[in-house]
Amino acid sequence: MFTRCVRNILSRSAFTVTLKRHSWRRCSTSQTETVDQVTTLLQLCVDRFFVSPGHANVELFQRGLCCSYGPLGMELRRNLLDQWWHSVTRSGAQVFGINTLSSSREAPTGGQGQLRIVECEQLKQRLGQKQLSKGRLAEEVHMLLQRSPSMRTNLLQGALEQFVPSLELVNRKLPFGLAETGLCFQPAEGSAEVTQTSLVWFCSPRTSSQWLDHWTRQRLKWWRKFALSPSDFSSNEVQQEELEQAASRGVRIIYNFPWGQEVLETLWSRGDAELLHIHKGDRSKLQHQDGRRSIPHVVSVTANMDRGAMAFLSNSLQQLKREESKKKLHQRKVLKLHPVLVPIKVALNIGRGATVELRQICEGLLQEFLEAKISVWPGYLETLPTSMEQLNAKYDEMGVLFTIIIGENTLESGLLQVRSRDTTIKETMHISEIKNFLFRYISAADNI
Amino acid sequence: MFTRCVRNILSRSAFTVTLKRHSWRRCSTSQTETVDQVTTLLQLCVDRFFVSPGHANVELFQRGLCCSYGPLGMELRRNLLDQWWHSVTRSGAQVFGINTLSSSREAPTGGQGQLRIVECEQLKQRLGQKQLSKGRLAEEVHMLLQRSPSMRTNLLQGALEQFVPSLELVNRKLPFGLAETGLCFQPAEGSAEVTQTSLVWFCSPRTSSQWLDHWTRQRLKWWRKFALSPSDFSSNEVQQEELEQAASRGVRIIYNFPWGQEVLETLWSRGDAELLHIHKGDRSKLQHQDGRRSIPHVVSVTANMDRGAMAFLSNSLQQLKREESKKKLHQRKVLKLHPVLVPIKVALNIGRGATVELRQICEGLLQEFLEAKISVWPGYLETLPTSMEQLNAKYDEMGVLFTIIIGENTLESGLLQVRSRDTTIKETMHISEIKNFLFRYISAADNI
Repeated sequence: MFTRCVRNILSRSAFTVTLKRHSWRRCSTSQTETVDQVTTLLQLCVDRFFVSPGHANVELFQRGLCCSYGPLGMELRRNLLDQWWHSVTRSGAQVFGINTLSSSREAPTGGQGQLRIVECEQLKQRLGQKQLSKGRLAEEVHMLLQRSPSMRTNLLQGALEQFVPSLELVNRKLPFGLAETGLCFQPAEGSAEVTQTSLVWFCSPRTSSQWLDHWTRQRLKWWRKFALSPSDFSSNEVQQEELEQAASRGVRIIYNFPWGQEVLETLWSRGDAELLHIHKGDRSKLQHQDGRRSIPHVVSVTANMDRGAMAFLSNSLQQLKREESKKKLHQRKVLKLHPVLVPIKVALNIGRGATVELRQICEGLLQEFLEAKISVWPGYLETLPTSMEQLNAKYDEMGVLFTIIIGENTLESGLLQVRSRDTTIKETMHISEIKNFLFRYISAADNI
Repeated sequence: MFTRCVRNILSRSAFTVTLKRHSWRRCSTSQTETVDQVTTLLQLCVDRFFVSPGHANVELFQRGLCCSYGPLGMELRRNLLDQWWHSVTRSGAQVFGINTLSSSREAPTGGQGQLRIVECEQLKQRLGQKQLSKGRLAEEVHMLLQRSPSMRTNLLQGALEQFVPSLELVNRKLPFGLAETGLCFQPAEGSAEVTQTSLVWFCSPRTSSQWLDHWTRQRLKWWRKFALSPSDFSSNEVQQEELEQAASRGVRIIYNFPWGQEVLETLWSRGDAELLHIHKGDRSKLQHQDGRRSIPHVVSVTANMDRGAMAFLSNSLQQLKREESKKKLHQRKVLKLHPVLVPIKVALNIGRGATVELRQICEGLLQEFLEAKISVWPGYLETLPTSMEQLNAKYDEMGVLFTIIIGENTLESGLLQVRSRDTTIKETMHISEIKNFLFRYISAADNI
């Protein structure tokens, strides 16, 4: 898909091929290579600043939990969250963003209330009281715990609470949705953090099953849009016996990791029980403008975007090998992240020539790219000598879409060299064309 | 500033004035009116979906803490965080984004470690153990507390921890910065949440004071860029006796709220003590590529963006009065938020005419705006009858930049009516021009 898109744009540009294209072959993977594959992916993520180093941190990442991200991982997740946001709020459906608190002093419902934020000093003070009996001490600690705010485990409760004020916003008309992204805390995982996206959709009871299907199609399409091999993303209906209480149907969106399947997103048709419970059964507050006295049904769409980032990294890593001669076997690792997701769109480097002048050109281009919101890697600031081959290998592992080389030629004629990550073709282009070329390339990939 | 900008663009457009402009006067405020002013602001924020209703929630908001935001407040804070992000990462300085965890199992330093996430079940289990003596019980609870993750109170510690892997990223060259936005938890406020922005800047010891001045200028300029009355934002040097330990200098950026001054942002020149402490005094890991064996100094730039959102709301609310006759006194409230910050740029409404056709035109325009990332309010979906005057009053309070009316005229000639929030002028424009007009208007305001 991307290759076709590159070709379309290339054919419209004033490009000339300056270097022959090598022929790379994609590696085949057997079951025994899986462990290697995972190790390679995780090592690459650390080496190329997606994930901060440290065994415990990398483990969090692999388990699909929030971890300490490096600059590239941070930007990837940011792009992912932005794309999710635009897809739900620009879908044509009435969706409003909200922001609720991650801790709450309200009486918790459902799975909430397992994790509490306790002020150490207060608890220690209780424990230090000499005159208290053991029973009284236990009671005091208990009370302190009950009064402490509980951490949210999902974004559903906040959205259900915001249903009533939001109903005013839409003149009591259904359907509409409330969207939120934010950190949630999982007690089962030793209080691990997860970056969730949540769309809570309110609709009439008779349409809830259709809406579940609608959002499943939308969401699966969204995941596949950014994938290199879309078939690794799939959906399946939750079996009757696995249904959460109150839910009448459920669908899971699954990613096929090298080590097996993991759930990226879950959609539930939840009925009206939770909405009624949170609003203490006050049916009059919950009724919409529809003549009939029905309570809206809730469809929840919840994804884990930390695991989502991991899935796209895993999906986009290609290991290619090339036989240069009988003796030499080259391995090339390329992170073929989708152009809108990839953290760095272009790297700026200098070739041979008058360093001061070349750097000035780079500075100018850098500013131009930044103003056009094209993220750029200032490779020209690096002072360690590296061969072109090493540089390309590094940028391929970072997923950098294009590498620009500013050289003597640029000073003389304004021509620079552009190498594409996906085709490995190096072409020359005039400096005045490069920004528009990149802009068009990324937009084209976005609109496919 | 904005009015000038509007005029510049208006003069370049095919505009014709169709209605006379009313003359509004800005209300003067005396000390006794301050309470009214604050009440009006808070009420407006709730009525117009910036802040979710509820006394406790509004109080959080007024205290400059994170609260439950409605769709407009959520979008305002989102725009604010985006602008902050672009201003630090596109400043030309080497700044990298990171993402660290909001809870940590590491031994806490400084003010951290006051708030712990405790698993309720585990603690209750300890308390229920009958055979334990009181002393043993207290000890067990103590141990559980020590092993529980602590919530972060700021983003500084995370950035200091990421210094070593980031040093690789820049080939051990100074200066560079690490940027992060996220929730922090304040023990002093009863475990309240705050949305912080943090730039941690690493530089050579001899330049740290200059960098503090540099970032103070940059940040103050940033706050004032979006202000209606920039003089309400100011900076002052922290007095010697108020300096935090380890800091050699500090600067605060202050906003002048109706009830007094509050701190929006704090900049500290912190020396190298904390960096050394976190990396256990391992000087060799911390040294940069500079010949001399010095440890970088740290300048921290930390803002509270919940209070920032509150400051811009307060700053942009204008109360204007107009005497229509001796008897009638009209009050008009306008939220003159900066075009790039304002949550909704344009509202789409229908006037008299064939409803089905007019709605179709609105749907088309809505999609066009959404694709151009111009946030739009689908007023045409509202079915309650409202007068034009009521509608304009509502949109002014929401801060909506432009209101578009699609009417019979649009069906016949493609002309629509556009009303400006800031000038209250209504003009006619061709439907094919409107998207570009809005796009240019917002870009112009961004680039001033």
